[in-house]
Amino acid sequence: MRIAVDAMGGDYGSVPLVQGSLQALKERDFTLVLVGDEQVIKPLIPANLQSKVEIVHCNDFIAMEESATSALKRKESSIYIAMEMLKNKAIDGVVSAGHSGATMSLATLKIGRLNNVLRPAICTLMPRIDGNKSLVLDAGANVDCKPENLFEFGIMGYEYARAILNYPKVRIGLLANGEEECKGNEMTKVAFELLKKHPNFIGNVEGNNIFDSNVEVIVCDGFVGNAVLKASEGVANSISFLLKKHIKASPIGIFGALFMKNVFKKLKKQIDYAEYGGAPLLGVNGNVIICHGKSNAKAMKNAVFQAILAYENAVNHNIEVALEKFKN
Amino acid sequence: MRIAVDAMGGDYGSVPLVQGSLQALKERDFTLVLVGDEQVIKPLIPANLQSKVEIVHCNDFIAMEESATSALKRKESSIYIAMEMLKNKAIDGVVSAGHSGATMSLATLKIGRLNNVLRPAICTLMPRIDGNKSLVLDAGANVDCKPENLFEFGIMGYEYARAILNYPKVRIGLLANGEEECKGNEMTKVAFELLKKHPNFIGNVEGNNIFDSNVEVIVCDGFVGNAVLKASEGVANSISFLLKKHIKASPIGIFGALFMKNVFKKLKKQIDYAEYGGAPLLGVNGNVIICHGKSNAKAMKNAVFQAILAYENAVNHNIEVALEKFKN
Repeated sequence: MRIAVDAMGGDYGSVPLVQGSLQALKERDFTLVLVGDEQVIKPLIPANLQSKVEIVHCNDFIAMEESATSALKRKESSIYIAMEMLKNKAIDGVVSAGHSGATMSLATLKIGRLNNVLRPAICTLMPRIDGNKSLVLDAGANVDCKPENLFEFGIMGYEYARAILNYPKVRIGLLANGEEECKGNEMTKVAFELLKKHPNFIGNVEGNNIFDSNVEVIVCDGFVGNAVLKASEGVANSISFLLKKHIKASPIGIFGALFMKNVFKKLKKQIDYAEYGGAPLLGVNGNVIICHGKSNAKAMKNAVFQAILAYENAVNHNIEVALEKFKN
Repeated sequence: MRIAVDAMGGDYGSVPLVQGSLQALKERDFTLVLVGDEQVIKPLIPANLQSKVEIVHCNDFIAMEESATSALKRKESSIYIAMEMLKNKAIDGVVSAGHSGATMSLATLKIGRLNNVLRPAICTLMPRIDGNKSLVLDAGANVDCKPENLFEFGIMGYEYARAILNYPKVRIGLLANGEEECKGNEMTKVAFELLKKHPNFIGNVEGNNIFDSNVEVIVCDGFVGNAVLKASEGVANSISFLLKKHIKASPIGIFGALFMKNVFKKLKKQIDYAEYGGAPLLGVNGNVIICHGKSNAKAMKNAVFQAILAYENAVNHNIEVALEKFKN
């Protein structure tokens, strides 16, 4: 098994990307392929791990502020080379914390879609109160969707959750403005009818259900998904900001907070995206994990594990089989 | 000035609805018209306030689980009677914590729309980190929108914010999947062009901007708005749940939390919807405030103040003037 990590383009440079990948290598047996500037990467690899690491050198990478379309022409860039290798089956998965638009465009162009998939989707893992995760897709790859796309998102999310996450049961919900079947917009009402084909479809769910452990896979278009995820992140950050502000403003609060350190640590661990790794790009004919640009080493390690699990559990094969069954 | 409160149909019965309204009466000079079951309401009114309160008796009200359309026929229900009074100019505003769908349907049917308004919108107030509020509209009245509707939401939200909330400047943002002008879906991209007509339009904003004090009025369709608001509520509730759980599980945490009481209280005050009152239904030819079914007395008091301020500041007149200007 060969997993490639785009060692360039993250917000914090190559160090956390490489360190996280090496941590994964200590816990699982695979070949790590690091794509990026050899001069930067090589000094980061300890002697005892060198036999398990391959470096594919390149000079270029796509910076965050560049356009995703320009990535299609940058043949010497780290993500271009990684996708080319995935296309040629030289590797079994790609993890990138670089420009996510570039990663998506290149994945779709280079490796194409799975059979019966019209639109790939970004599948984001969200924390929920039982300590497990829920999946929200699409998180931003497709801002204008047709009902058929949402149906596919449901199937893909289900197959991913079933293979990668340890749920006793995976339930699919359709994000709407109310739980009743009559709720939804024109598009989701048609998607509702399509999703009924799946035995694990539980109907409409609402924004708060993402976190309450009553549904595992939440289906929506990428415009809605993106807005919901960014708002959720905004609420969590705002609460954290206000809590710190109010603590600092009160000597008694500062004293009390000293004893709450472990409580805050546990809470942070439970809602921190670093614990979740990256978001798989489901529906492309390869194994691609898109990480937050601000990913730390821990997030990268977990993302590499996601790539390994997706490969080992043949998620893409299962998606094709399921879509073949439901579409025909 | 005569403000009516639907004294029936909230999740906790008439008591908090009446108590909150009476609290408003102690702070501001107006006539309070309570619409509901006289036998329930009358005992709640102290002798010294009776001269400022009128009771309009009715036997019926729309329960939360009933359909909004059935409300149109229930002529003896509290919200029907209140809307009839608003239509006949017997009152200057209506506040209701009852069935919001029924309130919306009746408002649109009975009192109609303002000139140049195609679709009324629910305008929700959200907490932000500077202690002020931002407005999100539409929060759920219109699940399928055209660009023209979003343009109107922007104008209506701006006029409401300008009149009711004390901002030095009111900025209008369009909710999208990125801040760049090229972001958005087919519908919001056209709305972007329309909103450019307004000098206070600052372009696309993202879900997290609702809370970060960089924009005052956030425009979106009611499907997206509803999902975003419910997800935000879900995150806040989940964090509160997890925090309590982790505190309870740790004796040191319990000890620390004792000293944090004031900090938590301040935080709660800042993010609690009770502090915000209700959501105005903007675009109807009357002054209607829709409250959360779970509104406590404080939320009701603040909602009554909102109705008073909207009336005093002639928000509806200003909306008509602005739309006339921008549409012609």
